[in-house]
Amino acid sequence: MVVHEEEPFNAETGLAALGEGPLTATDAFYVRGHATVPEIDPGGWRLHVHGLVERELDLSLVTLREAFVEREVTATLQCAGNRRTGLMAIREIPGEEPWGAGATGTATWTGVALADVLALARPLREAGHVGFAGTDLCSEAKPAQRFGGSIPLDKACRPEVLLVWAMNGEPLPLVHGAPLRVIVPGYIGARSVKWLARIEVRSRPWDGYFQNIAYRLLPPGGTPGPGAGLPLGLVALNSDVLSPADGETVAAGPVEVRGYAFAGGERHVARVDVSIDDGASWSQAELLEDLGRWAWRRWTMTLELTPGEHEILVRAWDSSAATQPEDHATLWNPKGYVNNARPRVRVRAAAPAIGQAGVRDDPTSTHPSTRTR
Amino acid sequence: MVVHEEEPFNAETGLAALGEGPLTATDAFYVRGHATVPEIDPGGWRLHVHGLVERELDLSLVTLREAFVEREVTATLQCAGNRRTGLMAIREIPGEEPWGAGATGTATWTGVALADVLALARPLREAGHVGFAGTDLCSEAKPAQRFGGSIPLDKACRPEVLLVWAMNGEPLPLVHGAPLRVIVPGYIGARSVKWLARIEVRSRPWDGYFQNIAYRLLPPGGTPGPGAGLPLGLVALNSDVLSPADGETVAAGPVEVRGYAFAGGERHVARVDVSIDDGASWSQAELLEDLGRWAWRRWTMTLELTPGEHEILVRAWDSSAATQPEDHATLWNPKGYVNNARPRVRVRAAAPAIGQAGVRDDPTSTHPSTRTR
Repeated sequence: MVVHEEEPFNAETGLAALGEGPLTATDAFYVRGHATVPEIDPGGWRLHVHGLVERELDLSLVTLREAFVEREVTATLQCAGNRRTGLMAIREIPGEEPWGAGATGTATWTGVALADVLALARPLREAGHVGFAGTDLCSEAKPAQRFGGSIPLDKACRPEVLLVWAMNGEPLPLVHGAPLRVIVPGYIGARSVKWLARIEVRSRPWDGYFQNIAYRLLPPGGTPGPGAGLPLGLVALNSDVLSPADGETVAAGPVEVRGYAFAGGERHVARVDVSIDDGASWSQAELLEDLGRWAWRRWTMTLELTPGEHEILVRAWDSSAATQPEDHATLWNPKGYVNNARPRVRVRAAAPAIGQAGVRDDPTSTHPSTRTR
Repeated sequence: MVVHEEEPFNAETGLAALGEGPLTATDAFYVRGHATVPEIDPGGWRLHVHGLVERELDLSLVTLREAFVEREVTATLQCAGNRRTGLMAIREIPGEEPWGAGATGTATWTGVALADVLALARPLREAGHVGFAGTDLCSEAKPAQRFGGSIPLDKACRPEVLLVWAMNGEPLPLVHGAPLRVIVPGYIGARSVKWLARIEVRSRPWDGYFQNIAYRLLPPGGTPGPGAGLPLGLVALNSDVLSPADGETVAAGPVEVRGYAFAGGERHVARVDVSIDDGASWSQAELLEDLGRWAWRRWTMTLELTPGEHEILVRAWDSSAATQPEDHATLWNPKGYVNNARPRVRVRAAAPAIGQAGVRDDPTSTHPSTRTR
């Protein structure tokens, strides 16, 4: 992992680990934190459900496990700041983590449906949003407050939104939110609140710092403030190249390019195009295993690269036939969110040395890199 | 209206009519047809519901009106070929209608929920899609067939999908599908099948010409064929400038720019930006009346234009914080669908003639134009 900050702990997945398989290894999965990881006694822990409900709940982990149907979802999480370094290269973005390509990952999550818990609490007619408050006390916010956020009630009642205690078939690690976190597939990672303490059914969206001031897209000249900018929620269509790495030298000849695309929201990836002539012509990548509508779609393509410098350009298309914007320069914003420009990777294809012509057929000859983009 | 073809009748809304109000006048609403408008006796007409259902239905108009709850939705329809002329300017697209800006419009539609009709028919467990067949026999398809298409069952069961007999409070005109048409908000116009004859509940998407061959996005070098390209369904985020018209001369000084943005799918428009320096800087337009999540959002901005040539560039953002691609050249495709590039309008700002300085403060001095883009 590439550690950006030790306290609070913030680290992203290295490019090699990100490209390894359809699911991201738990110990390599990116961590975005805004405070010291809280220590929680699972035995004494309770989930408090309150607000606009007919019946308040205080549920133990045992009750959650025993009284509700266990469900599983394979979902991609993606930090709203993923690929921020591309925006930082345009103009500086002080005070924000320099996320490269690895503030995203895909895992299988196990727990109970939020909808089932809400059905027991029975939201009132004026309910419109479901808020989540964590245990982590964040001094970054003024005043200091627990991390939190909300999603529309409509989304909260869909079967894919889970309260989870397991990740990739193992108990949820503390750093990923144990004993219980929310998973909101299709939404920015910030809504998948960790160390969940309470669920508040509300008439209006969350008014805490992390939704009303942070995690909002400001216009280029904007200033963060309550309600300024548009609230982030659904993940925007995005993609990235996971191999070869930007700046890598590969053997000329056939070169396998691999990456992922993620449609976000409720959409799916419909097509991925690759160009090595700056978009003058495009070829369609092969889409790999379909993990369902809540997960990224990995893709691959073999390019025939002549000796010399090449730029690999990629664009994904979602199920509305929308594609990514061309240029990350036009996406720059003061907090550095949502860089979903078409990714570009520069590689140098080296002619084989005399007597080593066979190397060009060796797929392991591309060198993994931990360089972040 | 701008008539592109008399038989079958195809016409788009002129720019001035499109910009007139939040709803598009019924007699100016665009018409996309693939065959001669069928003549249907409303008294003898029946809606046949069949396929993967427990109970087949044959419903008269009287039964539909009497036995179901009447519902209303304000929804924007948009032809998948809207703004095709922008793509035709890049490379020719033979055999397709040269739609400018006006193959879109917004109306209030009245009828019954498809979900209520399906509830009576009770889809079987293996149902996954709901198909619609019209009465219009289209010889454009080989073999000739009735126009048709399908949507996922999930969408078909949502409350916004209606079977309608009225448009903007008046009986549905014959050219718009009387006695009954489907309205699928958020989807391309081709799914809002007119002159509805039957509803077929299916396990797989519609395999007729208009979904399996036409209305699919091919890669630039692709050839139409069964299953080739990605099926269009959800409308992609789009926007356009409705005033001033491209090429118009306006009085220098404050110039009101007006347009619409449409998020498509289940998304809403979050922001609209306007630039007069080719995207180096952007200002945020004022969003006008909110007609709900299924309708376009009109916007306005007053620009201060100095005498000379200007290019007005616009980009909309949806609720996932995704924006439109920059350049329509990179969106060219063989059938000319989904031109959702950022719209550009060139205007000449004329210095006021001596003794007429007051004209610059007269907002009526911008001249409506019927030029299509």
